[in-house]
Amino acid sequence: MVVKIIMKVYAKEELSKEEFVNHWLTKHAPLAKQKMGDKLRKYVISIVMSAEGEEPGYQGIAELWFDNMTDVQSIMSSPVFEQVMADSARFARKGTWLMLEEHAII
Amino acid sequence: MVVKIIMKVYAKEELSKEEFVNHWLTKHAPLAKQKMGDKLRKYVISIVMSAEGEEPGYQGIAELWFDNMTDVQSIMSSPVFEQVMADSARFARKGTWLMLEEHAII
Repeated sequence: MVVKIIMKVYAKEELSKEEFVNHWLTKHAPLAKQKMGDKLRKYVISIVMSAEGEEPGYQGIAELWFDNMTDVQSIMSSPVFEQVMADSARFARKGTWLMLEEHAII
Repeated sequence: MVVKIIMKVYAKEELSKEEFVNHWLTKHAPLAKQKMGDKLRKYVISIVMSAEGEEPGYQGIAELWFDNMTDVQSIMSSPVFEQVMADSARFARKGTWLMLEEHAII
């Protein structure tokens, strides 16, 4: 079973959209990739373009894939995870998560 | 640029979780895949396992990938899209969407 975590990411209010996207893609993403190692199977960042009805309030979504729950728990309880979270605070004011079981159709 | 659509899917209240997942994965997904054709590059269904704090209210997430906005508009304005939506009403009571620009890190 593939476990996917979706995090809604709320930009720090003092950053422009460009600064937010730039820090995330060019500084945070390589750091997260390096620190989390090969238990992190896939990592995708998506920037909100538009939404149905009102603005969602968050500006981006991070998706992280793991082989199983044991790997998720092992990363989340390690000091490495705290280092990654500390860098998140440089561009994001908040993140909320969902854990899902994924089925690829195409 | 890759365009991704994320739909939050709210199960019909009269269905059990199993009936909801089953209809979506075994009936709706193959129909959507067939009807939307090759402009739909990738299609992933995820079932909510747990969330931070309170329940999100929706039980699943559909993700759909397209090469560009022209393809999205062409599908959404075609009669095929209405047929797919009509089947959605058999297992979902509501769906809300977000459109995003995707960056794959790993």
